[in-house]
Amino acid sequence: MRGEDRLTAWLSRQAGTSRLLGDDAAFLSLPGDVAVTVDSQIEGVHFLPGLAPERIARRLLAVNLSDLAACGARPAYAFLALNAPGNLPHRRFLSALLRAARAAGIRLAGGDLASAPAFAATLTLVGTRPRSGRWVRRDQVRAGDRLWVGGTLGEAAAGLLLQRSGGTLAKKPAPLARAARRAVTRHLLPTPQLELGAWLGRRRRAAALDISDGLARDLHRLCRASGVGAVINGDGLPIADGFSALCAALGANPMQLALTGGEDYILLFALPADVVPPPRFNATAIGIATAGRGVTLNAAGKSSALPDRGFDHLQ
Amino acid sequence: MRGEDRLTAWLSRQAGTSRLLGDDAAFLSLPGDVAVTVDSQIEGVHFLPGLAPERIARRLLAVNLSDLAACGARPAYAFLALNAPGNLPHRRFLSALLRAARAAGIRLAGGDLASAPAFAATLTLVGTRPRSGRWVRRDQVRAGDRLWVGGTLGEAAAGLLLQRSGGTLAKKPAPLARAARRAVTRHLLPTPQLELGAWLGRRRRAAALDISDGLARDLHRLCRASGVGAVINGDGLPIADGFSALCAALGANPMQLALTGGEDYILLFALPADVVPPPRFNATAIGIATAGRGVTLNAAGKSSALPDRGFDHLQ
Repeated sequence: MRGEDRLTAWLSRQAGTSRLLGDDAAFLSLPGDVAVTVDSQIEGVHFLPGLAPERIARRLLAVNLSDLAACGARPAYAFLALNAPGNLPHRRFLSALLRAARAAGIRLAGGDLASAPAFAATLTLVGTRPRSGRWVRRDQVRAGDRLWVGGTLGEAAAGLLLQRSGGTLAKKPAPLARAARRAVTRHLLPTPQLELGAWLGRRRRAAALDISDGLARDLHRLCRASGVGAVINGDGLPIADGFSALCAALGANPMQLALTGGEDYILLFALPADVVPPPRFNATAIGIATAGRGVTLNAAGKSSALPDRGFDHLQ
Repeated sequence: MRGEDRLTAWLSRQAGTSRLLGDDAAFLSLPGDVAVTVDSQIEGVHFLPGLAPERIARRLLAVNLSDLAACGARPAYAFLALNAPGNLPHRRFLSALLRAARAAGIRLAGGDLASAPAFAATLTLVGTRPRSGRWVRRDQVRAGDRLWVGGTLGEAAAGLLLQRSGGTLAKKPAPLARAARRAVTRHLLPTPQLELGAWLGRRRRAAALDISDGLARDLHRLCRASGVGAVINGDGLPIADGFSALCAALGANPMQLALTGGEDYILLFALPADVVPPPRFNATAIGIATAGRGVTLNAAGKSSALPDRGFDHLQ
């Protein structure tokens, strides 16, 4: 056996899925209804060069899991396309991916390894529908629904800014250093809200997506899919402890980061106004869906149109 | 709507799968047993820079379909992760992919678009099991089985050599020019042997894989998976008309290309000795599976061990 086959054989033993990994395709027996999602992590695009392979692996899984969370799916299988330079410590990357996958109830069922000039990994996840749940979609928002987010906004973007600036703020006062560490962790390793997604799937009606390109952009997507508008309370957007001070230290506008920073990987969701998520999800109501089109932002006593702005891979 | 969303909306209309492409994941109702395969095409690794986006798209689909063919699966759904520089003519690539997918009975059900410094596309295909068929695996070869290939060997590798050399051989004598054109086409656009794979799936017992890294390497894989050896008749390996003359013009060894050239994307398969594939598949018997281990090559009156050699992404 040579390099590629030896690695595949090793991986197959590690994954405990020799029957799955041995053929040209993986053979799965699925329960009928599945959700499938695909996402890539590219060096220099989604994370800065030099990130440890273990961190890349966990991030790759997390951003994909966030998509399954948004649909109310239960993670089941993963397929990896790993395109990386020959000097990548493949086993470190794969071990970390397997460990994180196992913790999420996922089996690595197949994939493809190729040499490439720069690191890029694509993960395909297959999720199943919980027996008592339905799929959570984007197009189920109705005028009058309350809009929620499942965590704090802008922190991941601040973490990326911090990493780009090369600073750690470690020597700053303790609260600021703590906020900085949390922001970097938030950027490096998102926490997919699978439990929240599953809860949404058990509601009579709910709509959701995960915020990957910033609240503003993803809110516009949600509204467009459902044919509604929205009014957002900008003064009540949830931000982390010390976030404003951190933004000040970074020279960034906290409201701007919260609205358009991106990569929050928390759920933005809509529920009928009389339905309130349990406190354990730490969700915050941020506004209301309206019969019109467009998104209005109320902040600091002023009302303005919130533009469809955020991260765009094609701009 | 901005660049990325506009492209997704356009794609969704083109694909006629608005329900599938609109959410964080695609929701599929599958018939239970599915085969899933993942493969990438990377500029400079799988094809030379400058290839037209339409050709890249068709090649991406074809190499993935070849994996489904090897399993006896019927193509059903595709998921695309497209990581490309902003100047890629996305719609040309996507139109060509959709057209080729439609022709193969495939719906593009989801995906992910990202900007990246170099072109890399990963396609995940989901295939279903024909009602009257079983999955074709690698581990079903038994000693005494006859080994077959579903087409000619080495031609795709010659086509790549030809493209790398920058020559067209167009001004050479007509038969050589014809052989050259066929070889380049063979490299650029493999023909996945789906019908042959489905036929194998209807046999009582069959084993197969698709030759992607050269006959020698993939034969070793097949034998290893099944715990058998093989004896190959090197003098009877199927090569295309004019292949030897083309190799001479390229300064390449035809036997070497046929054995280790790679990217043939035809099926290597095993059947009980009394089963012969119908003539329409143009299959050629190349040897026999043995009870021992290792692969022996008989050629020009000599017998030698055929090493496990071919293309390896990790070497």
